[in-house]
Amino acid sequence: MKPVVGARVELSDLPLREDLRGRTPYGAPQLDVPYRLNTNENPYAPTDALAADVVAAVAEIAGELHRYPDRDAVALREDLAAYLASATSVPLTAENVWAANGSNEILQQILQAFGGPGRVALGFEPSYSMHPIIAAGTRTEWAPTPRRPDFSLDVEKAAAVIAETRPDVVFVTSPNNPTGQSIPLDDLRLLIASTSGVIVVDEAYAEFSPQRSAIELLDEYGSRLVVSRTMSKAFAFAGGRLGYLAAAPAVVDALQLVRLPYHLSQLTQAAARASLRHAAETLGSVALLAAERDRVVAALADMGFQVVPSDANFVLFGWFEDARAVWKSYLDHGVLIRDVGIAGHLRVTIGTPAENDAFLAASKEVSR
Amino acid sequence: MKPVVGARVELSDLPLREDLRGRTPYGAPQLDVPYRLNTNENPYAPTDALAADVVAAVAEIAGELHRYPDRDAVALREDLAAYLASATSVPLTAENVWAANGSNEILQQILQAFGGPGRVALGFEPSYSMHPIIAAGTRTEWAPTPRRPDFSLDVEKAAAVIAETRPDVVFVTSPNNPTGQSIPLDDLRLLIASTSGVIVVDEAYAEFSPQRSAIELLDEYGSRLVVSRTMSKAFAFAGGRLGYLAAAPAVVDALQLVRLPYHLSQLTQAAARASLRHAAETLGSVALLAAERDRVVAALADMGFQVVPSDANFVLFGWFEDARAVWKSYLDHGVLIRDVGIAGHLRVTIGTPAENDAFLAASKEVSR
Repeated sequence: MKPVVGARVELSDLPLREDLRGRTPYGAPQLDVPYRLNTNENPYAPTDALAADVVAAVAEIAGELHRYPDRDAVALREDLAAYLASATSVPLTAENVWAANGSNEILQQILQAFGGPGRVALGFEPSYSMHPIIAAGTRTEWAPTPRRPDFSLDVEKAAAVIAETRPDVVFVTSPNNPTGQSIPLDDLRLLIASTSGVIVVDEAYAEFSPQRSAIELLDEYGSRLVVSRTMSKAFAFAGGRLGYLAAAPAVVDALQLVRLPYHLSQLTQAAARASLRHAAETLGSVALLAAERDRVVAALADMGFQVVPSDANFVLFGWFEDARAVWKSYLDHGVLIRDVGIAGHLRVTIGTPAENDAFLAASKEVSR
Repeated sequence: MKPVVGARVELSDLPLREDLRGRTPYGAPQLDVPYRLNTNENPYAPTDALAADVVAAVAEIAGELHRYPDRDAVALREDLAAYLASATSVPLTAENVWAANGSNEILQQILQAFGGPGRVALGFEPSYSMHPIIAAGTRTEWAPTPRRPDFSLDVEKAAAVIAETRPDVVFVTSPNNPTGQSIPLDDLRLLIASTSGVIVVDEAYAEFSPQRSAIELLDEYGSRLVVSRTMSKAFAFAGGRLGYLAAAPAVVDALQLVRLPYHLSQLTQAAARASLRHAAETLGSVALLAAERDRVVAALADMGFQVVPSDANFVLFGWFEDARAVWKSYLDHGVLIRDVGIAGHLRVTIGTPAENDAFLAASKEVSR
């Protein structure tokens, strides 16, 4: 066997940034097991009609792949605006919407524009673990602020911390990943009133929640409010990588100063538009998943688990003396769930009824 | 007409980073004109066989778009390594290769890992204008170093500047965009010897050049050398957005600390692999474009233009008292070329013979 080119070089030989030394890459294990309930995907595959439409959309542009994509992705942004307008009754247009390769890239662009060295981003933990990672990647100081022990948000205390810390960017995740609770709009108003920075409401799981969207506050608070969304969850498009946001047009202008040109491929733009044309059928799974979530919550509670209330397509539950060992025990039963690093707890994604049955059956058997 | 939501908010109302104020987004005009010779695309559309293979590859994954992509894009990196190995005779493997949404994202990840606040990146200007923009986006100090008046690189002077400036990252573009010259490997050795930082050889146009690739130096200089490539140019895949790099495995490990998880969609991975399967037919256009380049260079010289020697699929030419006015005059003739901001010069992408004829016909007519 030939040696790998450059294999003698060690990571420690490289002039890596000091703050990256000793870190490990973010990412849940990608394991091939019977039941994958660890990354909050929609368990329902695209319908044949949707898949065919994606293929047809790609066929339309395949002969033009030698050309750069529309740098501003205008048609896709129009479609996203139309979807959000119909979902929230707020008359958004393409000028209110920006899109990128997953909401992680959206959040990175927000921190490149409004965060960075000498600036502070604040979040209420536990929450989406990419927020502090993207803060680090953009060299934004991270100010973690704890939620209550039951993972709900003490809004008055949160507003006080914001007023004292004066962060440049505040992340509010609603429903919160990995705990599940949403923030009511009145509470959000209180947080907005407490800051002169930008509040990013991360609504990756909004479609699963009965709560109203922060998008309803955009016309009032457009200079301080950004609402991020994703097609990875309810839209069953995790493999297509499409994140987006709603904001005042000036915010979209600001992000165009930091986005990499042509960041969204022709493939992504075409496939995402095809997927949006099937929004009604895809989002038909949302009610079913919400009902399954309630069934899983009730069954776990019956078994004596502590279950955190959830508006999303996942459930955080415990209490475990050794969550890592329990996680492994689920895996031994063919069920991959997520150890999100919260003491005593694990997170399970709501799957199909059969997948949830398998998870609940394993829940009776795991050692705890 | 309804007012746009949030339209009252002005860019100046936002807490934008100070260094972004007053900037305008990067990007050449995307105009619908008969002859688009401004962004160095390959003018030859994908063959029907290639387009069909892209569509078939997407059809294979369309039913799985609800699942996240392979986060490490292993199969694609294997294919890219095989292509580079066959092109350079250097036995690269997937461990030597990393991929992203265009080479801009590759370069951004490199600067996130090895640049950033308190660090310096150096480039030899005029060169690819995204280098300083990505440096700014990652808050890396930019140290521009001039080329000779004829745009060639004075390597001994360059080595002396590197030794004095002690940059953390050095960009060497070969062939250089927008001027066209390549750097010989012996010159590159001299630059590598002069620095303890990382040298990024940006080989976006390597396929068009008769010069040997810096990849040949990787086994020797793996702790300091990174070679970036793109499928946007010779591979006629600008719309698919696929940039990549070859480096020591430890460099790939380092980039995994800063990449956003799942940055490459299933669509991108599948379509890029399909495109790579057709490398032989796509790259068949390279010899034709090189011959056309030489024809355009000779014809421009015959007309009395000053033409900069080029190893790439574009030509920088002048001299114009008012390059902007001449650019506009070309546009009036239906020919979109590029004003790259170099005094007295414009850049034209080599197109099909018919496109080049149109450009040359316009060249006789433009006012200068």
